[in-house]
Amino acid sequence: MITPRTLSGFKDRLPKESYAKSQMLKSIVESFEKFGFSPIETPHLEYAEILKKQGSEEIQKEMYHFLDHGGREVALRFDLTVPLARFIAQYKNELGLPFKRYCIGNVFRGERAQKGRYREFTQCDFDFIGTQSIGADAEIVQVIYQTLRHLGVERFTIALNNRKIFNGLMESLGAQSQTIEVLRIVDKMDKIGHKSVCEELEKETSLKSEQIAMLLDFIAQKQEGSSLEFLAKLESYKARNATLAEGLNELCALCVLLKPLIPQEFYQINLSIARGLGYYTGIIYETTLDNLSALGSVCSGGRYDNLTQNFSKDSLSGVGASIGLDRMLAGLEELGLMQSSANVADALLIPLQSLEYGYFAAQNLRNLGLKIEVYPEIVKPKKSFAYANTKGYKYVIVLGEEEEAQKTYTLKNMESGEQKNHLSLESLVKCLQVVEA
Amino acid sequence: MITPRTLSGFKDRLPKESYAKSQMLKSIVESFEKFGFSPIETPHLEYAEILKKQGSEEIQKEMYHFLDHGGREVALRFDLTVPLARFIAQYKNELGLPFKRYCIGNVFRGERAQKGRYREFTQCDFDFIGTQSIGADAEIVQVIYQTLRHLGVERFTIALNNRKIFNGLMESLGAQSQTIEVLRIVDKMDKIGHKSVCEELEKETSLKSEQIAMLLDFIAQKQEGSSLEFLAKLESYKARNATLAEGLNELCALCVLLKPLIPQEFYQINLSIARGLGYYTGIIYETTLDNLSALGSVCSGGRYDNLTQNFSKDSLSGVGASIGLDRMLAGLEELGLMQSSANVADALLIPLQSLEYGYFAAQNLRNLGLKIEVYPEIVKPKKSFAYANTKGYKYVIVLGEEEEAQKTYTLKNMESGEQKNHLSLESLVKCLQVVEA
Repeated sequence: MITPRTLSGFKDRLPKESYAKSQMLKSIVESFEKFGFSPIETPHLEYAEILKKQGSEEIQKEMYHFLDHGGREVALRFDLTVPLARFIAQYKNELGLPFKRYCIGNVFRGERAQKGRYREFTQCDFDFIGTQSIGADAEIVQVIYQTLRHLGVERFTIALNNRKIFNGLMESLGAQSQTIEVLRIVDKMDKIGHKSVCEELEKETSLKSEQIAMLLDFIAQKQEGSSLEFLAKLESYKARNATLAEGLNELCALCVLLKPLIPQEFYQINLSIARGLGYYTGIIYETTLDNLSALGSVCSGGRYDNLTQNFSKDSLSGVGASIGLDRMLAGLEELGLMQSSANVADALLIPLQSLEYGYFAAQNLRNLGLKIEVYPEIVKPKKSFAYANTKGYKYVIVLGEEEEAQKTYTLKNMESGEQKNHLSLESLVKCLQVVEA
Repeated sequence: MITPRTLSGFKDRLPKESYAKSQMLKSIVESFEKFGFSPIETPHLEYAEILKKQGSEEIQKEMYHFLDHGGREVALRFDLTVPLARFIAQYKNELGLPFKRYCIGNVFRGERAQKGRYREFTQCDFDFIGTQSIGADAEIVQVIYQTLRHLGVERFTIALNNRKIFNGLMESLGAQSQTIEVLRIVDKMDKIGHKSVCEELEKETSLKSEQIAMLLDFIAQKQEGSSLEFLAKLESYKARNATLAEGLNELCALCVLLKPLIPQEFYQINLSIARGLGYYTGIIYETTLDNLSALGSVCSGGRYDNLTQNFSKDSLSGVGASIGLDRMLAGLEELGLMQSSANVADALLIPLQSLEYGYFAAQNLRNLGLKIEVYPEIVKPKKSFAYANTKGYKYVIVLGEEEEAQKTYTLKNMESGEQKNHLSLESLVKCLQVVEA
């Protein structure tokens, strides 16, 4: 006898959670497809050399790799971006550029076990490859906005920044070679505070204390009023450095496009967001739910040049974002936006007299658009009603001898205990549809 | 530079195929949920001991297994049934019985490479655990029927049999210990023919030639008229053996339930189907598309006792089926039932004058229910129209200076070349919605 147990660091989803996740994904896919993003699928396993030397050192250490039956070195994908780069390089002639795709799939990282973090998790990416147009950046922001609204989220903020701005500042200080190191430290602001960041920057980089103060003052500037007004205030910085000016100009062009598309309260320039280290090269985004900012960003992304640089001589630029599925699910649940039932049907139909009639009646209800589960055995009502309670059914349809003879239905509300007898098919459907809507 | 290539034996899905697959899965899930099946999710990786000694010897040889970062022996799942057994044994108290679940997920088998067979493929299982009721068997058949109808398939046949019938026949010959070996040989009937099957049975088993003739004559009997009429003709066999009688009685009870649920032309008793070897213990099914019988079964299943026997002392019975997704997709495509476009949107909107107005107009169309892709750059029409052709767009909406000034739309049919100018928003939507419906 083998003890049934889930692999350490991995997770099963029981019906309630799995159903909530699938409802969420359905809504997300509808949003992506409204913009003409197409799905693609790549295997969970790749040649290890495709995935090696990609992503951070940490990700490399956490990668699952092994020899397959043919002695090939293979690895489980750790994200959907490296396989996308391989895919684009491989099929770009067939696909035609620009190319918009979404991809929802599981990825694997052998991280140290932590609460709420699993070694297999679902990513949900959408990207726009092969265009430098700021229109593509704007559309990605618009997709984030429309996707969250379609999920029913009422208040959230999409923070916008451009990596070129910080890069330009560092260039203006002659310290561009230290950009990544400085970003790494500045990124800890929320965790360790302003003072510790200053100390660490003085210790770990060649920046002088007045340069550090300038940098930190710059990124601490907060948008008040509209994004375009805020950018107008930053106009004077453009003289400092061409890269910085380019970054501000791109943000400005982005906000001009966003203005008629998204109400201002849903997006905001935030000069302090950095989105990890080496990856992004242009405009970047982070999205937080206003009532749940401690949750962190639920949808982040940005523009990256040279997506395919390891696989192809053509330099292809992309812009995209990724929804943190588990985090989003936790957020929606906390906001009360997810159905929280373990059953997917509208009602349980309990045949007391005849399975044959029970199945027949259930199919009639399904043909009228309802989701109906039939209790599959003729048992004492005590047993089948206990089942209805375990599954959390609010409504039970009872079909006994009388109902069968009269072709009527008895509907019981399991929460209130209220029972309606002698319902016609039409009245039954009406009762249940009112509930559904 | 690394050559971009897909791992040997694995498969990428480009947008056209991936979209067709996702449309098919959406329809299948709708059908499952109509019957109250809930989704569950288990990891792609399991402790190797959970998966070992399960399935056939061949499947065991093909299993991908390796040591994880913690030195645990782990393996990629090769089906969704063994993880289901583990899941049920682990959570049965929380889930409540009977338990109905569906699961759609990828499984991995290191098979020798063959045309059309891949080492990673998607399974789509639905099962009913913890009830012996024939009602559950009937419902699984009904789900197969409703699912295929919902996918738009007009003609197919669900073949029904009961493993107990053949087992009973073998018992009546005192040869029950050879049942699996005999089934293995009989299963080759379609491939090697009647004569070779007889020869092999004589050579490999202890059956005498008149016994072989009796067995083969029995399973060659074909249903004419209704299933219940055919079963009535087999009535006399019941005296031979109790197991055989039980098998026929169960089939009879099943057909009584199916009669008001499924038109007779969609199901048929077929005494020759066996569904693999040791796995199933009761009623079994196979489904073939009438115009594409060479494709093989697109949905098979049956009843199995002792699902959880390796993980738990409780003996739990189950009944379920699995849709062969790749085969079904190939079948639907051949029957012309799948949309075959690489783009998911209803039209491509090409802004000739202003990105800002293009994005704004596109969102208005989306708000009215249309799926609209925007060409993300202002370029020469030659380039954006070439893109529309590459992507297979039938409709292109053009917004130039005049359209923007007049708030009208130009719609071009890329197939006929017809162009409609000065359309109002309402007329544009009407034109595109007629196309959609």
